[in-house]
Amino acid sequence: MASAVKARKPTSPSAAEGRGAVTRAAILERAVDLASAEGLDGLTIGRLATELEMSKSGLFAHFGSKRELQLEAVAAAARRFATAVIEPASEAPEGAERLRAIADAYLAHLDRGAYSGGCFWAATSAEFDDRPGPVRDAIAAALDSWIGELERQARIAGAAEPGRFAFELYATVMAANSRFRLSGDRTVFGYARQTIERLLGELPPAGATP
Amino acid sequence: MASAVKARKPTSPSAAEGRGAVTRAAILERAVDLASAEGLDGLTIGRLATELEMSKSGLFAHFGSKRELQLEAVAAAARRFATAVIEPASEAPEGAERLRAIADAYLAHLDRGAYSGGCFWAATSAEFDDRPGPVRDAIAAALDSWIGELERQARIAGAAEPGRFAFELYATVMAANSRFRLSGDRTVFGYARQTIERLLGELPPAGATP
Repeated sequence: MASAVKARKPTSPSAAEGRGAVTRAAILERAVDLASAEGLDGLTIGRLATELEMSKSGLFAHFGSKRELQLEAVAAAARRFATAVIEPASEAPEGAERLRAIADAYLAHLDRGAYSGGCFWAATSAEFDDRPGPVRDAIAAALDSWIGELERQARIAGAAEPGRFAFELYATVMAANSRFRLSGDRTVFGYARQTIERLLGELPPAGATP
Repeated sequence: MASAVKARKPTSPSAAEGRGAVTRAAILERAVDLASAEGLDGLTIGRLATELEMSKSGLFAHFGSKRELQLEAVAAAARRFATAVIEPASEAPEGAERLRAIADAYLAHLDRGAYSGGCFWAATSAEFDDRPGPVRDAIAAALDSWIGELERQARIAGAAEPGRFAFELYATVMAANSRFRLSGDRTVFGYARQTIERLLGELPPAGATP
C-alpha cells in the first residue's frame, strides 16, 4: 500500500495535495487493521510508525496526537464499512430488499475477512464501552447510525416492531462474526442466513403496506 | 475485598492454606474485572499489583508469569459465569425450562453489571480471536462449552436444529450485552426477552418428544 503511494509523483501543487490525501488514507487503512487486531489503545503513533516504516515525526505531521489518530481511525473504519456494506446495498429498493442486501453484503464482508485481526467494531466497542470520552462516543455514534439505518429500513418494510427487528438483525450478524472469528466454523454463516430469512419472513408481503 | 481477606487471621497451618486460597481467589476476582475493562493484554503482574496495593514479588509468588495470570483469569471468569448463570439454572428441568432459566439468569447477570468494565468474554474474545496460543484456546474452549450446553439443552427440548437454536440464543444475549454497554438503553433487554420467548415458542410442546 505504501509503495503504491510512493510510486505516484506529484506534478503540481494540487497533485501534491492529492498525494497527501492518498497517503493519509493509506495510513488510516493500516491504522484500522492495527486497531482491529490490537485494540485502539494499542494504536499509538510510535506503533503505527514502526508498522509503516515511517518516522514518528512524519506521522505527527498527519495526526497531532494519539487521540486524533484514534478518532480518525474510527472515521476511516466507518467509511470502510459504508463502502463495503451500505453503498452496494443502496442499489436495492428501500425496505425488505434493502435489508436483505445489507445483510448479504455484511456477511460477505465478514466471510472475506474484511479486517485483518477481526471486526474493528467488535474489538473497539468491547474495549471502549467503559471509557467515557470522545473515542467511545465516536464508536457508539457509528454503531447507532448503522442500527438506526436497519431500524429505518425495517419501518419502511412495515415491521411491527422496527427496533426489535433491527436488534435481531444486528445480533445475528454480530454473533456470526464473533463465532466465526473464534471457532473458524463457517456453519455460523448458514445459521445467520437462516435467521435473516426468518426475520425477513416476519415482514408483511411487499405492497401490503401503504 | 482485599481488606476482608486481610481481616482473617490464620490460626493453624490448614487455616493458613485456606487463607492462601482465599487470597488467590480474591486476586483473581480483581484480575477478571481488570481484564473486562482493559483487556487481558493489559493484565500484567505489575498492573494488578498496583491495583491491589500488593508487591509484585507477592503476586509473582501466586502467578509465575503474565501468561499464567491470564490463563487463571480466564478460568476464574468461567467459574464466575458458572456460579451466576449455569448453577442457578440447573435447578430447572433439562430442556426448554433449563434454556429459559439460563437465559433469565444471564440477562439478570448482565443487568446487574456482573463485570465492572463490561463482559469479560466480549472483551477478551474480540481481543484474542487473532492471537493463536493457549490464552485464545482457553477463551474459545469456555465459549464452546457454554454454547455446547445451550445446544445440548436445545436437543433435549426437541429443537429441530439445536445448533442454530443455540447460535440464536447466544446471539441474542451477546447483542443485548453489547448494545446495553454502549448505549445504556435497557430497551434491548426487552427485545432480548421477546426474541428468547419466540425461540422457545419454536420448540415442540413439553411431552411431545420421546
